[in-house]
Amino acid sequence: MIITLLTDFGTKDYFVAAMKGVILSINPLARMMDITHEIEPQQTAEASFTLKACYKEFPSQTIHLAVVDPGVGSDRRAILVETRNYFFVAPDNGLLSFVFQTENNLRVFEITNEKFFKRPVSRTFHGRDVFAPAAAHLSVGVAPQEFGARIEDFVFFKENQPRPLNENLCEASIVHADRFGNLVTNLRRDDVPASFALEINGREISRIKNFYAAAETGEVFLIWGSAGFLEIAAFQSSAANLLGAGAGGKVFVKRL
Amino acid sequence: MIITLLTDFGTKDYFVAAMKGVILSINPLARMMDITHEIEPQQTAEASFTLKACYKEFPSQTIHLAVVDPGVGSDRRAILVETRNYFFVAPDNGLLSFVFQTENNLRVFEITNEKFFKRPVSRTFHGRDVFAPAAAHLSVGVAPQEFGARIEDFVFFKENQPRPLNENLCEASIVHADRFGNLVTNLRRDDVPASFALEINGREISRIKNFYAAAETGEVFLIWGSAGFLEIAAFQSSAANLLGAGAGGKVFVKRL
Amino acid sequence: MIITLLTDFGTKDYFVAAMKGVILSINPLARMMDITHEIEPQQTAEASFTLKACYKEFPSQTIHLAVVDPGVGSDRRAILVETRNYFFVAPDNGLLSFVFQTENNLRVFEITNEKFFKRPVSRTFHGRDVFAPAAAHLSVGVAPQEFGARIEDFVFFKENQPRPLNENLCEASIVHADRFGNLVTNLRRDDVPASFALEINGREISRIKNFYAAAETGEVFLIWGSAGFLEIAAFQSSAANLLGAGAGGKVFVKRL
Repeated sequence: MIITLLTDFGTKDYFVAAMKGVILSINPLARMMDITHEIEPQQTAEASFTLKACYKEFPSQTIHLAVVDPGVGSDRRAILVETRNYFFVAPDNGLLSFVFQTENNLRVFEITNEKFFKRPVSRTFHGRDVFAPAAAHLSVGVAPQEFGARIEDFVFFKENQPRPLNENLCEASIVHADRFGNLVTNLRRDDVPASFALEINGREISRIKNFYAAAETGEVFLIWGSAGFLEIAAFQSSAANLLGAGAGGKVFVKRL
Repeated sequence: MIITLLTDFGTKDYFVAAMKGVILSINPLARMMDITHEIEPQQTAEASFTLKACYKEFPSQTIHLAVVDPGVGSDRRAILVETRNYFFVAPDNGLLSFVFQTENNLRVFEITNEKFFKRPVSRTFHGRDVFAPAAAHLSVGVAPQEFGARIEDFVFFKENQPRPLNENLCEASIVHADRFGNLVTNLRRDDVPASFALEINGREISRIKNFYAAAETGEVFLIWGSAGFLEIAAFQSSAANLLGAGAGGKVFVKRL
Repeated sequence: MIITLLTDFGTKDYFVAAMKGVILSINPLARMMDITHEIEPQQTAEASFTLKACYKEFPSQTIHLAVVDPGVGSDRRAILVETRNYFFVAPDNGLLSFVFQTENNLRVFEITNEKFFKRPVSRTFHGRDVFAPAAAHLSVGVAPQEFGARIEDFVFFKENQPRPLNENLCEASIVHADRFGNLVTNLRRDDVPASFALEINGREISRIKNFYAAAETGEVFLIWGSAGFLEIAAFQSSAANLLGAGAGGKVFVKRL
């Protein structure tokens, strides 16, 4: 059984290793795959995008364990989500919003059954004491409903979706700046008209390229990225640096 | 058999991959788990803390391979440590001090049997040529005593422990600054009186919180961390930055 | 079957996870080992050195998957290389030059058979859609020639090799600066005379040490590194910083 891990814990501390040790102690055969541990601290929206961009590549029945958890120790809930092909274990803080947006048949359970916790539960590290053990027990066959009651009022941030301002103008946002400085927006093909320009920080971009090497060095252009979203890129340069933009920034789609 | 890896080799070079390749060439079934490779170069004390903070989460019989090795190629010894539940393979330079402090039944062997080295042994990379092969051979069932003679005079740094200065004052130190800027001290619950303040860089901190979100944004406070040590934290901010402090820094416990 | 991964994708994005998910969906038993994902963006020469420095440590039949691919989406070819003990899957852009230099019995195939692609093939992420699936299908037993036709005109950069300028002088280069600031040159033992000095940025270095701790703190010296190349090092300091040098820089070997 495969368990993926996505956190904002970084890789210099013992946090991720502690989670993996806990998982292996419950399921010695668990196969763990890191998605990333370098989500900007406490940026649940970035975590949500990153998970969305790759979770479907994994085999059916994969358990996706995602912990970006600014509310750790408070009364925010822990949840387990079952979709047609996957399981998700995460805090109930909107981290799974992109998943909720993509999947239609889903069941959400609050994780409350302390039988599946690592005791005593620390107030500062539920990744190790609540989320990792839940994923591990799930991987050895514990049924989702054994972890707690089904809920419907889970946290679902819809503000990550583009918002039409008028017939010719739509407000969208940057959900991620990748390692190469490409700016990933929340715009899909259905969100933009046949002919359009993107405005960002007072600058208009309308040229769309099919691949990076089709552009001139340093040229800023649009490209449909590999996650299915419109990206702003600069060939052999960083669009993020050139435009002074990053995750959370606004962009506007203008019909041409 | 699980082998964990902890080094200061970073992840941009070929060093860690070379160790893993060597291990797999000896034991194709070895399961390797990275603890971290981002220990500050040659900081054995930080390595010692990080290992201490998570090694017990792993299943019994796990082999912990730790290489932070400023003396590589000199006459510092290589050691293999057997405790009730675990094995450790490391240079004999104090890296295992926190483990020695925690475990009582332990046997320490000097690794000298060249049969288990990768030949020729480089003078600069014992991680690949001495430590990784030792861990791999151990994982396929070679007995600890086959690697070399038992020793008692292994290196054990005790200066990482708090030191009482007088009845009301105790000197302690920061052993680690984590990704979030939390400052982990070497103080356990038994080391502090019922009522106390911590002094660091001329500033006194006495407020203890149970979890991060219980504090105001930017507020500096104390918290019992997930590794069992007292930490100095700042909610949604970095205590390390706010206080200008880091690993190796001194703190003082004052009885109130 | 072991598949190693080496890319310039970094570890903060979903790119590497997407590749691993694709591989596991084709071969659920694939064992993946990261070499590094922190090659400087688009630096194929650095990738070539890093792969060269460790690929032989892995067990026979290991598949080395390397993606540093500035020409993604253009008409640069994808190749599969079979040597006596290993397989390599990479873009045909010189990334495998050091391997071509080391191995003599090799067969190179262009990867063109779309049956083994992940469809639709994105124009920006062949790591996920072309290279990862090829490595995965290879790992389940698909024969190299099934991926496409054998070719002989693969890209092979020879400029990474030292170049004699006259009887007493040879021009060489720095192929990598490692985490510790050690500067790795492309000079092997056969490339230098019995007695020589290295000139770099107007400074001459002739002292050779056998191991790091044999030097004074901060002393700059030469050392035969663990990858078989001459390195410029500074004990407990960074030669890269002290000399203001890095990958791509020139050095000169002067006969003494």
